[in-house]
Amino acid sequence: MTKAQITPDWIAVDWGTSNLRAWAMDASGKVLAEATSQEGMGKLARDGFEPALLRLIGPWLENGPAPVFACGMVGSRQGWCEAPYRSVPCTPLDPAAQVTAPTNDPRLSVHIAPGLKQTQPADVMRGEETQIAGALSLMPGYDGILCLPGTHSKWAQISAGEVVSFQTFMTGEMFALLSEASVLRHGLQGDGWDDTAFVVAVSDALSRPERLGARLFALRAEGLIAGLAPPAARARLSGLLIGTELAAARPYWLGQRVTLVGAAKLSAAYARALKAQGIDAQHLSVTDCTLAGLSSLALQTEAAR
Amino acid sequence: MTKAQITPDWIAVDWGTSNLRAWAMDASGKVLAEATSQEGMGKLARDGFEPALLRLIGPWLENGPAPVFACGMVGSRQGWCEAPYRSVPCTPLDPAAQVTAPTNDPRLSVHIAPGLKQTQPADVMRGEETQIAGALSLMPGYDGILCLPGTHSKWAQISAGEVVSFQTFMTGEMFALLSEASVLRHGLQGDGWDDTAFVVAVSDALSRPERLGARLFALRAEGLIAGLAPPAARARLSGLLIGTELAAARPYWLGQRVTLVGAAKLSAAYARALKAQGIDAQHLSVTDCTLAGLSSLALQTEAAR
Repeated sequence: MTKAQITPDWIAVDWGTSNLRAWAMDASGKVLAEATSQEGMGKLARDGFEPALLRLIGPWLENGPAPVFACGMVGSRQGWCEAPYRSVPCTPLDPAAQVTAPTNDPRLSVHIAPGLKQTQPADVMRGEETQIAGALSLMPGYDGILCLPGTHSKWAQISAGEVVSFQTFMTGEMFALLSEASVLRHGLQGDGWDDTAFVVAVSDALSRPERLGARLFALRAEGLIAGLAPPAARARLSGLLIGTELAAARPYWLGQRVTLVGAAKLSAAYARALKAQGIDAQHLSVTDCTLAGLSSLALQTEAAR
Repeated sequence: MTKAQITPDWIAVDWGTSNLRAWAMDASGKVLAEATSQEGMGKLARDGFEPALLRLIGPWLENGPAPVFACGMVGSRQGWCEAPYRSVPCTPLDPAAQVTAPTNDPRLSVHIAPGLKQTQPADVMRGEETQIAGALSLMPGYDGILCLPGTHSKWAQISAGEVVSFQTFMTGEMFALLSEASVLRHGLQGDGWDDTAFVVAVSDALSRPERLGARLFALRAEGLIAGLAPPAARARLSGLLIGTELAAARPYWLGQRVTLVGAAKLSAAYARALKAQGIDAQHLSVTDCTLAGLSSLALQTEAAR
């Protein structure tokens, strides 16, 4: 089957800062095809979005138009077209709040989902609201906590189908900066992992979170004077950062039902850290949740026509 | 007076990862001339150190040789010639532990000061030991705490002329990474400063240090949804990081005599933060301390001949 023969009923798009992902979908929510490019929001000027999208999904439109439902940074002020934040407490998605992007190609109709904001403490999300909506459609009636680990990890309290409150942590970005750009990079080479070092570091950070700043340089010093191995150093850095996040997010998870929505490996690290605190977290795939969230938008938008 | 007419008795060198600084000194410890280049240790292969040094101090050797006393990363394993760490507790410098770098130019004799290491908790310093020695020669009989703010801030406990223990914090490097390379950079433009925002953030971080991870992203969110001004955001980021450092370094400063050895602006921020906790810290210039430390090495080395 060539790309040109795919005839989707609608197209799902997750358009972040670094990447653009699209899925050709049928009416039942089944994935017919998938495509990815590096043309993330961060690399595009306003007039670059439509061409970038057409480069990726053009082949799927050869047999006729299909509406596009998109989420992520594409709806930010620096994106294609701003979709103003909705304020929590609210449902994660509202079909009526979608914004239609300006397009030149008559085959294109692009609906962009707005993100969510919280006034006190100030916080924002874009893209994760769609994952949350998807998680709720995959787990109807879910009441509890969703944790979405990633570059900017989010913890969200869900009740009666609404996002009640949420909190963002820069854990993933800190790990990337410290392991790739700081003096610590010299002792963290490779992809090795030492699970014991991870669990000890999580527990250490949870019990004395204020020591994070002091513990980081020790990774370098132990590498220099005590031969700390890179797999142990990587796992300990991850454990210190995730443990510090768990310390601050304690009101979210302590005694709560927790579901992780994220990449498999990172979610497994969070699950391991939570397990050591007595929390058995479930896990949903982030792609499954994104597609379920966009599917619910596509269905409700069609139904409202 | 042209450069060629300078005839130093000895030459002081502070050779860090990013920069190389040299001072032509007379026998009384007076600075005759100063020179700086960007040829830091991080940019040089082993055989690049001698030519880099000659490019900078060559004009000072035209009337005859002068011994060079150097400190900093030049003595690390990746430097010109490794000067193995000495273990605390010990005096900050020991003339007998200096290492002589291999040289080809017969006019050059280069003495490199070793750094210090601590086994538990693991920690290392290179360059700061010379500043500490200088601070002690500028304040004879000093007993108390030295705080050396910078890329990697150090806190050192001094007693009876020895470094008893020390602790490194990556505060300066974290500020640089977060303000230049993270998502926060969008809201931190310019050099503006809001002193109230700084002091509030220090106090906030000291009272709830475990919330650092959560407070960082709020800087971005408040910029987006509440118009947080860049000067307030910069000052708050600095205050959160310094406050978190103070929280972990509390055993070092609480009820102690504290002297700051660092760049003027950064030291002023630390002094402001400590003042709010009831600590009146003195301040010494980092260059004065480096030169006083290297002077003591030069004098003792000459005396031992």
